[in-house]
Amino acid sequence: MFNDFKLAEGRPVYLQVKDYMKRLIVQGALQADRRLPSTRELAGLLGVSRNTVISAYAELEEDGFAYTVQGKGSFAAAVSPVRATEDKVPASSEKLDWSERLSDYAQLAEELDLMKRGIRGAKGIISFTSIAPDEKLFDLDSVRRAFSDRMAVEGNVLLNYGYAKGYKPLIDYLMDYMARKGVDTRDKDMLITSGFTEGFDIVLSAIRKKSGTVLCENPTHNTAIKNLKLHGFEIKGIPMEQDGISIGGLEQALAEGAYDLAYFVPSYHNPTGIVTSLQKRLELMTLMNRFRIPVVEDGFNEELRYSGSHVAPLAAMAGAGNGVIYIGSFSKVLFPGLRVGWVLGDRRLIGILESIKRARNIHTSTLDQSLLYQYLHNGNLEKYLRRARAEYKRKYELTLACCREMIPYSSLSGDGGLHLFMAFEQGFDTRKLLAACSKRGVIFTPGDNFYTDGTGGNTLRLGFSRVADEDIRKGIAIIGKAARELLNS
Amino acid sequence: MFNDFKLAEGRPVYLQVKDYMKRLIVQGALQADRRLPSTRELAGLLGVSRNTVISAYAELEEDGFAYTVQGKGSFAAAVSPVRATEDKVPASSEKLDWSERLSDYAQLAEELDLMKRGIRGAKGIISFTSIAPDEKLFDLDSVRRAFSDRMAVEGNVLLNYGYAKGYKPLIDYLMDYMARKGVDTRDKDMLITSGFTEGFDIVLSAIRKKSGTVLCENPTHNTAIKNLKLHGFEIKGIPMEQDGISIGGLEQALAEGAYDLAYFVPSYHNPTGIVTSLQKRLELMTLMNRFRIPVVEDGFNEELRYSGSHVAPLAAMAGAGNGVIYIGSFSKVLFPGLRVGWVLGDRRLIGILESIKRARNIHTSTLDQSLLYQYLHNGNLEKYLRRARAEYKRKYELTLACCREMIPYSSLSGDGGLHLFMAFEQGFDTRKLLAACSKRGVIFTPGDNFYTDGTGGNTLRLGFSRVADEDIRKGIAIIGKAARELLNS
Repeated sequence: MFNDFKLAEGRPVYLQVKDYMKRLIVQGALQADRRLPSTRELAGLLGVSRNTVISAYAELEEDGFAYTVQGKGSFAAAVSPVRATEDKVPASSEKLDWSERLSDYAQLAEELDLMKRGIRGAKGIISFTSIAPDEKLFDLDSVRRAFSDRMAVEGNVLLNYGYAKGYKPLIDYLMDYMARKGVDTRDKDMLITSGFTEGFDIVLSAIRKKSGTVLCENPTHNTAIKNLKLHGFEIKGIPMEQDGISIGGLEQALAEGAYDLAYFVPSYHNPTGIVTSLQKRLELMTLMNRFRIPVVEDGFNEELRYSGSHVAPLAAMAGAGNGVIYIGSFSKVLFPGLRVGWVLGDRRLIGILESIKRARNIHTSTLDQSLLYQYLHNGNLEKYLRRARAEYKRKYELTLACCREMIPYSSLSGDGGLHLFMAFEQGFDTRKLLAACSKRGVIFTPGDNFYTDGTGGNTLRLGFSRVADEDIRKGIAIIGKAARELLNS
Repeated sequence: MFNDFKLAEGRPVYLQVKDYMKRLIVQGALQADRRLPSTRELAGLLGVSRNTVISAYAELEEDGFAYTVQGKGSFAAAVSPVRATEDKVPASSEKLDWSERLSDYAQLAEELDLMKRGIRGAKGIISFTSIAPDEKLFDLDSVRRAFSDRMAVEGNVLLNYGYAKGYKPLIDYLMDYMARKGVDTRDKDMLITSGFTEGFDIVLSAIRKKSGTVLCENPTHNTAIKNLKLHGFEIKGIPMEQDGISIGGLEQALAEGAYDLAYFVPSYHNPTGIVTSLQKRLELMTLMNRFRIPVVEDGFNEELRYSGSHVAPLAAMAGAGNGVIYIGSFSKVLFPGLRVGWVLGDRRLIGILESIKRARNIHTSTLDQSLLYQYLHNGNLEKYLRRARAEYKRKYELTLACCREMIPYSSLSGDGGLHLFMAFEQGFDTRKLLAACSKRGVIFTPGDNFYTDGTGGNTLRLGFSRVADEDIRKGIAIIGKAARELLNS
């Protein structure tokens, strides 16, 4: 005993001694009423000062894990539950078979959890799988300043319970932000969520299943596909064209079936990278209005537009209508670690979503919300976006040029953002390509994950946001070479 | 136009001018190709410097909301979606009736949302409704230090995506923390959630309904009742006695029915404040083991024990068994604004819960997790608990003494923690009492909210953690007086 004590950095030493002794007492290694080593002895055994042990023993005693007998020293208190109860709880170590006790939802959640099956980027591998922001661009000083600014204003408010709807200053800021995108915010309201995914999950829980089918682009965001399936919806995917969803395909689908909801990603669509044209946005909204289908608009990466032209979100095109639910997030632009997103929609609907949010997790971290608010308020987003856009644009152009030069694809899309999408000739298998590339130290995301109908086996997504220039060139050369070999085999 | 511009504090002025002009352009008040005021003019109109307007115009142009004609000045770009599309989207302002499109779950979530119906504590009112921690106890300096410590170590890691399971250093810390409570952590694992509520919600989604019924104490935590109902479970409540759940009642329930799960709050039970005795904990676990019923243990306020004796959590009594799912949180002890809780359980089960967590909201805020980790690692919890326990103990004793002296209750419980619970004679209506007290500036939580079977109309919960000493005395005197009046009427 006492020979496995290891000091960790940063934590007060007397607490580490207390933790260590407490564990021995609770787990029964130091049984009840056994004398503890003297403070001098233990100090020697653990290699710490005697004062440290004195403090540790005092705390153990205060917490009821030890007691002192005058003139005799310290003794372990009777607290070991495991030892004390071993004979009283006969079946204590019997095991339940949890797999028998899981809901269909739980099993499906694991089955659809691609993260558990994905190829992990080992150290040194060139990975095009991520579309998370490049953390080298983060302006930590602004984040630190935002934190200290806000803590100074209302630190203890931030640390106590907040409201399910969200942190008021952030809601006000974002409502104004959305108004500046052209959204008519009258009779609308906003719920702050822990990112886009939670917003989407809550919206899906709130929607009644009548037809049980949801319209979306095909391919589309794989997390959205997963959540639609988890909520028991059928998915009707409409093919993508170079300027957005196929309007003809949409008209046909609308003629053939009924839909409870539509889900669209009009800007830097995931995975194709396509920005839906203004014309198509208008046509799309006209159809949704005519068929009275509510729309969930995924504001994905809208902030990352490189070009100057402004294309209004669908939520703006709906005017005073209440059919569009806009879900926004700065996760791909600013900091994904801050889990903050927002749902903007009809006021009555948001009231219902608020109750669901409260039932799920009370509210989103006030610290995250207030930090984001202060960061935005301080004017950091604009400065950051200028840098980020310039950097991503450069990477985008480099990636595009490399792909054009080195990969024998048959079509390529991506108007900017953080990724490109490409298709090879029919019958080409990008999972075989992935296997070949992976051996040579390069990975990407096979495109079939994004398809609603099991197709897309000949496609892939290349995320370039976190790949260094040199690795972009090297990685794409390897993909190109492997693809040519496969095509010629 | 230009006469409703108001400067906010803290945000760079050129951005405020840009925001303002952008809104006018996007909303069509400044139509396409209309000349904007000269920089000199606008500076005069808005009362800002000319350089500020020059910067604002430059940004508007960069973002595509304005353009310059050499020698003629700046003009609004054609970006207004609302005006531009008014004639093209005929049904744009038509409204959907969302109430027709809501799921049963959504409607039930709103119906069971007590926060939407509760009596709000107006300014100046004495409110005993909260059992949140007293924010005056928060040690903001330690929080600030924890933030800057952690940001210095790995700021950009904290701000980018983390793992669904949680922040590794925090998981390691909490696993060790639970081991020191006597939990056998072999073959167990941990999921970090956004507080207790999310942990419970995720666990309930994962449990297969066979009998469809869950056992719990009666009364019990009202959020748990809400979530059990939202998940479609029937609730079988077992009466509470002064030292915990009625074992006789439990045996009877086990003889009469089958249960998919049990939910228990063994320490400072909400709402009764009772700490289940060691003896009852043993008996409880023996029964759960015998009937092979998984247990969700709510670690609620376990950290707030005032007395020295250590009572092991049920998770410790289960030994090597895997039947207990322990859900912990420091929300009532440390900072509820940081939404961090943990689920400790069977490793395979936690793997499934991880997939559900990922589908719901990717992961809990890394900033919250890392801040909490660093705070704990720095040894602040121990220091804070010493102060908090002393303060809450003082308040507890004051509240107890006042209740004994001034309120004509028939029974009273609460072994410490942040609240007391009391019952009046049968037939007494604490909602009438609340109405009477509320008129005199005092509110509390009527107890029927906590009952699983519609009883408890004669009970109430008094949360004292956030009430000043003077208000405790004054408020309880008012409740006592009103209660006597009602009893005598």
